[in-house]
Amino acid sequence: MRIAIVGGTGKEGGGLAVRWGRAGHTVILGSRDGERARARAGELSAAGHGAFEGADNPAAAAGADVIVLTVPYAAHAETLRAIKDGVAGKVLIDVTVPLRPPKVSRVQLPAGRAAALEAQELVGPGTPVVAALHHVSSSHLADPSHPVLCDVLVATDDARARATALALVKDLGLRGLDAGPLDNAVALESLTPVLIHLNKTYKSQSAGVVFTNLRD
Amino acid sequence: MRIAIVGGTGKEGGGLAVRWGRAGHTVILGSRDGERARARAGELSAAGHGAFEGADNPAAAAGADVIVLTVPYAAHAETLRAIKDGVAGKVLIDVTVPLRPPKVSRVQLPAGRAAALEAQELVGPGTPVVAALHHVSSSHLADPSHPVLCDVLVATDDARARATALALVKDLGLRGLDAGPLDNAVALESLTPVLIHLNKTYKSQSAGVVFTNLRD
Repeated sequence: MRIAIVGGTGKEGGGLAVRWGRAGHTVILGSRDGERARARAGELSAAGHGAFEGADNPAAAAGADVIVLTVPYAAHAETLRAIKDGVAGKVLIDVTVPLRPPKVSRVQLPAGRAAALEAQELVGPGTPVVAALHHVSSSHLADPSHPVLCDVLVATDDARARATALALVKDLGLRGLDAGPLDNAVALESLTPVLIHLNKTYKSQSAGVVFTNLRD
Repeated sequence: MRIAIVGGTGKEGGGLAVRWGRAGHTVILGSRDGERARARAGELSAAGHGAFEGADNPAAAAGADVIVLTVPYAAHAETLRAIKDGVAGKVLIDVTVPLRPPKVSRVQLPAGRAAALEAQELVGPGTPVVAALHHVSSSHLADPSHPVLCDVLVATDDARARATALALVKDLGLRGLDAGPLDNAVALESLTPVLIHLNKTYKSQSAGVVFTNLRD
């Protein structure tokens, strides 16, 4: 599958790129700066992690089957407007957490309750949005040998998009869980400030979350 | 310590009562129907779980050091108004999740963003509110021999209330974690519809949540 990671030169995007590349997907790194994305793609290819391409964000989205959005919340709406034509009718996985610095360990709900709900508004009903991957430590993702002790909650209103996202989570070596409708993105996104608080309080850098007592 | 469980004749309250009673606390079960609360307290005492009393909700709150609120969201504001005088200046632990039936596996934020934030508004700044204990399976709590695979996130703006709540969580046999300011009650409360969805989807009755990669 061709996966675009919009914001793919950032920390979180880089870890996802390494794992999906190694799983056999073609990963298109997107950046506002296409040159920077191509350079980073060249590095990942040279490191033997798989097949990578680089492009500016709109071209990365246009060339992919699935688009994964990992940008700071401050750039969220602007980036969505830039890639809107390229994502039309495809699956959009939104990893954005609506953090508002400096209080990043405090839940501060955005106007639309969740970044993923705002994304759905922006791209329209023809493009299913999935909220996922907010809780996985980027440093653990970037090290392919590191086990990641973290489940991945997947929230969406679209069955096909859910199946696609759950399969891609499995390809990361993680357990994906159906977390319900896209409205539940509120829960997923607001858990990240809590994880940041746990990291500060308990001197960790990679607090994760695992769900217990599930039969599956 | 004297702990009032307001809504203590319900399922969640009953499990908490058993564990705290066995840990040596005096538990005052509160109910709108004081007679019913006294009958239930008599049953728990007779079963050898410890020292229990029963009272109507205002009297239960007035006679306790710490008040734990476990009522359906529909009764939340009304109950808080009834116990307001009795909780003044004490620690109020709010377990309420703002579920709106029938869609209980979907996040539906209340007007005040979180039930615990609404509680803080109602009781005023002199009474610290703690959000906690939303995710623990009541059936596992009620069976003292059952290990509970679930961490307890504790969110509050008050250091003394936080310490009190964390100590009481430990007395339940569970690990309590400082989850940050009371604003983070949004994350704690909205995770419950997700757990309900996981229960439905994965045919469980007691999905829980554990945090990983913490040093403590």
